[in-house]
Amino acid sequence: MRGKFITVEGIDGAGKSSVTFALHSYLTSCGIDVFTTREPGGTELAEELREATLKHRKEKVLPITEVLMLFAGRAQLFNERIRPELERGTWVLSDRFSDSTIAYQGGGHGVSTKFLFDVANQVHGDLWPDRTYLLDVPIEEGLKRKSGLQLDRIEIQDADFFQRTRDEYLRMARKFERITLIDSSRSLDVVLKDIYADLETSLLSNV
Amino acid sequence: MRGKFITVEGIDGAGKSSVTFALHSYLTSCGIDVFTTREPGGTELAEELREATLKHRKEKVLPITEVLMLFAGRAQLFNERIRPELERGTWVLSDRFSDSTIAYQGGGHGVSTKFLFDVANQVHGDLWPDRTYLLDVPIEEGLKRKSGLQLDRIEIQDADFFQRTRDEYLRMARKFERITLIDSSRSLDVVLKDIYADLETSLLSNV
Repeated sequence: MRGKFITVEGIDGAGKSSVTFALHSYLTSCGIDVFTTREPGGTELAEELREATLKHRKEKVLPITEVLMLFAGRAQLFNERIRPELERGTWVLSDRFSDSTIAYQGGGHGVSTKFLFDVANQVHGDLWPDRTYLLDVPIEEGLKRKSGLQLDRIEIQDADFFQRTRDEYLRMARKFERITLIDSSRSLDVVLKDIYADLETSLLSNV
Repeated sequence: MRGKFITVEGIDGAGKSSVTFALHSYLTSCGIDVFTTREPGGTELAEELREATLKHRKEKVLPITEVLMLFAGRAQLFNERIRPELERGTWVLSDRFSDSTIAYQGGGHGVSTKFLFDVANQVHGDLWPDRTYLLDVPIEEGLKRKSGLQLDRIEIQDADFFQRTRDEYLRMARKFERITLIDSSRSLDVVLKDIYADLETSLLSNV
């Protein structure tokens, strides 16, 4: 039986990496084999593309270039790691996936979302996550949590950009049943309790 | 007045770089300002992507990944260099452009050509070369000319792959009026004579 594919999404500072880390432990404690990854990256080539995408540079990097580089790394990660793991029954947990590109480059930068779904279809066919937890925080809250940290090229953007990104995430949450909206302005314990409860009634009910 | 955009295309070993070099001198001797480039590459980021695309690696690189990386570099080269040069009246001469990706990854590897034209449209809109010289040689001839040289990852492919690539190039030459088919199994002097004659009756007639 194919493993389940779970993703964690949200704007910068929403708490994705803490939730992904806790979720990995939780699923493992349920006796499930889990392959955990994060995007961009995850293979040698995808990591090179991550570095090239995020690093600060004088050259202006166009939104369409970001889209193509992000999906290039995703094509490698998905086809070389994620799909084989799912096919051997392992569950896959990823901090970000295609929804991020639709929210950031589509909502934030205005790249055609129809085009983004066409590219996603070429890269991973109709295999989308079984469950996506969208960690939602007001953008001021997300940026505040990130401040003091070193921000990468994509994180240094204006507040309007992050607002459009958040709005696109919320639009997708209304549209796709697989996406569960989680109020992430609350404490991590409460956020995790909500996610575990959702998992127990959805994916874990048949394990 | 916008400058003219000329590309040189063909399979490996067809003589593109020699023709591009000679063509640059010829146009310059006609008193034309020419910006000459070659793909993949042409900006700092595009050169990093070139290196990552062509280098030998253990990881299997998927055709769709090649497509996305090649068009990512092209998005930078086209929008940051080629289009601005054309707009200020400079002519642009490029050794390879989007036709290469349609021939190699479309014809050679079977990626949907409809998808490739959609990506091209996102990257450079409807601005295609004004004139494309397709240097055609039998694939055995092309491979023989390359032998003795160090081949990159894409050049090390089977003969069938190059045959499908050549066939796709020939299909495009029949379909698009801008593409002029040049028998490149002849000596460089004869090849250049044909190209200069074509240029004089097409682009150079109005200069």
